Amino acid sequence: MTGHHDTTGNSPLFGTLAVIGPGLIGSSILRRARQDGTIAARLVACDASPAVRARVAELGLADRVEADPLRAVADADCVILCVPVGAVAEVGAAILPAMKPGAILTEVGSTKQSIIGAITPFLRPDVPFVPTHPMAGTEYSGPDAGFATLFDDRWCLLTPLPDTDPAAVSVIETLWHRMGARTRIMDAAHHDRVCAIVSHLPHLLAFTICGTADDLADETRSEVLDFAASGFRDFTRIAASDPVMWRDIFLNNRDALLEMLARFTEDAQAMARAIRWGDEAFIVDRIERGRRIRRSLLENRQA
Amino acid sequence: MTGHHDTTGNSPLFGTLAVIGPGLIGSSILRRARQDGTIAARLVACDASPAVRARVAELGLADRVEADPLRAVADADCVILCVPVGAVAEVGAAILPAMKPGAILTEVGSTKQSIIGAITPFLRPDVPFVPTHPMAGTEYSGPDAGFATLFDDRWCLLTPLPDTDPAAVSVIETLWHRMGARTRIMDAAHHDRVCAIVSHLPHLLAFTICGTADDLADETRSEVLDFAASGFRDFTRIAASDPVMWRDIFLNNRDALLEMLARFTEDAQAMARAIRWGDEAFIVDRIERGRRIRRSLLENRQA
Ligand SMILES: NC(=O)c1ccc[n+]([C@@H]2O[C@H](COP(=O)([O-])OP(=O)(O)OC[C@H]3O[C@@H](n4cnc5c(N)ncnc54)[C@H](OP(=O)(O)O)[C@@H]3O)[C@@H](O)[C@H]2O)c1
Ligand SMILES: NC(=O)c1ccc[n+]([C@@H]2O[C@H](COP(=O)([O-])OP(=O)(O)OC[C@H]3O[C@@H](n4cnc5c(N)ncnc54)[C@H](OP(=O)(O)O)[C@@H]3O)[C@@H](O)[C@H]2O)c1
Repeated sequence: MTGHHDTTGNSPLFGTLAVIGPGLIGSSILRRARQDGTIAARLVACDASPAVRARVAELGLADRVEADPLRAVADADCVILCVPVGAVAEVGAAILPAMKPGAILTEVGSTKQSIIGAITPFLRPDVPFVPTHPMAGTEYSGPDAGFATLFDDRWCLLTPLPDTDPAAVSVIETLWHRMGARTRIMDAAHHDRVCAIVSHLPHLLAFTICGTADDLADETRSEVLDFAASGFRDFTRIAASDPVMWRDIFLNNRDALLEMLARFTEDAQAMARAIRWGDEAFIVDRIERGRRIRRSLLENRQA
Repeated sequence: MTGHHDTTGNSPLFGTLAVIGPGLIGSSILRRARQDGTIAARLVACDASPAVRARVAELGLADRVEADPLRAVADADCVILCVPVGAVAEVGAAILPAMKPGAILTEVGSTKQSIIGAITPFLRPDVPFVPTHPMAGTEYSGPDAGFATLFDDRWCLLTPLPDTDPAAVSVIETLWHRMGARTRIMDAAHHDRVCAIVSHLPHLLAFTICGTADDLADETRSEVLDFAASGFRDFTRIAASDPVMWRDIFLNNRDALLEMLARFTEDAQAMARAIRWGDEAFIVDRIERGRRIRRSLLENRQA
């Protein structure tokens, strides 16, 4: 059984909730918890940067703003790590010994298998660990980028370990429902494959095409900027995201991402071949599949 | 010298303007001309489909709606072909003999070199031909998809032939200014390369990734639809465009498109290699180039 978490009424789910890393995701969680009294009675934010701490205090996002993660988590009933994927296990390992027995440790990283693998050696039997991935975000980062409605009607995927206390999983599901999100529980490996195709590969392609354009002769490049049609604009919107976050995601979901890229490259080569040889039926078939997926997306109300 | 085109005052630029193919682009031109009295005194629309003609009449987009292209162009001072790229030369060849001496022939196809090559044998010395490409559009098609403000603040590129009458080029520039667009004159080959990277390649990648996702095992596919993050959503927005239009664009800009795809594929392979071997500096560099291009786009106010 986990500690003192009220999942039933309107009283706060947690006494104290600590957010490590009040960036886009972390500050959105804090803002929502501030607005919605049923999430936590007290909010703690922790960041290594004095500038970020000053800004978090100025925005009034937490009751306490801490520099030292050990102090930040000491009396927390739930700790949410909102740091880049590559830092989750390290920060988790550092704070775990300072956590209260029965408190829940959770995190919001965009990849799951590598985080679970790296943090497992440091887990404590009396501190349940619930990995999550809220599928919401923008291309901006930092405490000013967050907003309370970021998670409304978005999915939050939970990938608990086989031995994670089901009561703790249920508390974290309730947390995300109160954040406005829908939840689904799935296997971490499956999560990583789904995200490789719906999010990580599109970002990789977007970053790449910007580089390809940037390498063109100078005159063409300036015209690329002038005439960027809607196609390229949508790509570069994606490509504006944070370099450290995406570096970590790519490196931490390497196998699934490289597999999806290999499949994609084969498909792109097949398209190139059809264009070279004028295979109209093949080209139209590929374009129509895109339209079908688009229609399904609209029906799923995610578009 | 070209015919009776008033580019100076507020009187209509053309007596009669004929639009062949009142789809997204054609019907937007008609709507704008209807709204703005300075473009044409009389509007003619021509389409082979009875249903489209009925709809165009119902929407009141033209003064006359014709089934026969030869009748449609007979008294026109300007004819704009708004049909798919693959049909422009054929339709142009059919109507050219019926056009008035001094009238201007123009078209709006998304690729330029292949259209110019295919139509050249049919051109008449007394009918100037001005190829254009308005860089505006949506993923919808047909006469209901158009709107009068589609071209506002967008670029329209003109790719006249070396022997095109400069007076006719200037009349067509004025036409597009009155449509709300900015114009630039450039070489057709250069146009095709710029559009290959800013528009045609992004669409090819978008169609392809939809197919790659569609090929995944059934369970993953349904979750792709459920969890499509913003990355994939942006891609599929692009991928919803009309199959015939894009088939024609791909086949008619084959060389530039295949060259850009080859460059892109090399760059994507380099990224894959960096991910496989954990080359963090390379990955971050690529991501930062994307951000730089994005910033330039914002500064160019095209984002
Ligand atoms: N953005 C999205 O679209 C999105 C969506 C779903 C999940 N996620 C995941 O959410 C997490 C946070 O992303 P975000 O977009 O909120 O990023 P963000 O706005 O850049 O915030 C990251 C936070 O982590 C802190 N941090 C960075 N490196 C650290 C380290 N080595 N040790 C301790 N703290 C560190 C940062 O502190 P400083 O400001 O002091 O550097 C900042 O407070 C990531 O794991 C990401 O994969 C993001
Ligand atoms: N959409 C864009 O984003 C965009 C942007 C810039 C330029 N363009 C260019 O504009 C042109 C028109 O595109 P659109 O988006 O307006 O397409 P659209 O909405 O599908 O309209 C195409 C029009 O052409 C007619 N048509 C199709 N095939 C024909 C044929 N073989 N002979 C004669 N008429 C034919 C159609 O008639 P029915 O309805 O009877 O089939 C329809 O009226 C294309 O060359 C395209 O490359 C498009």
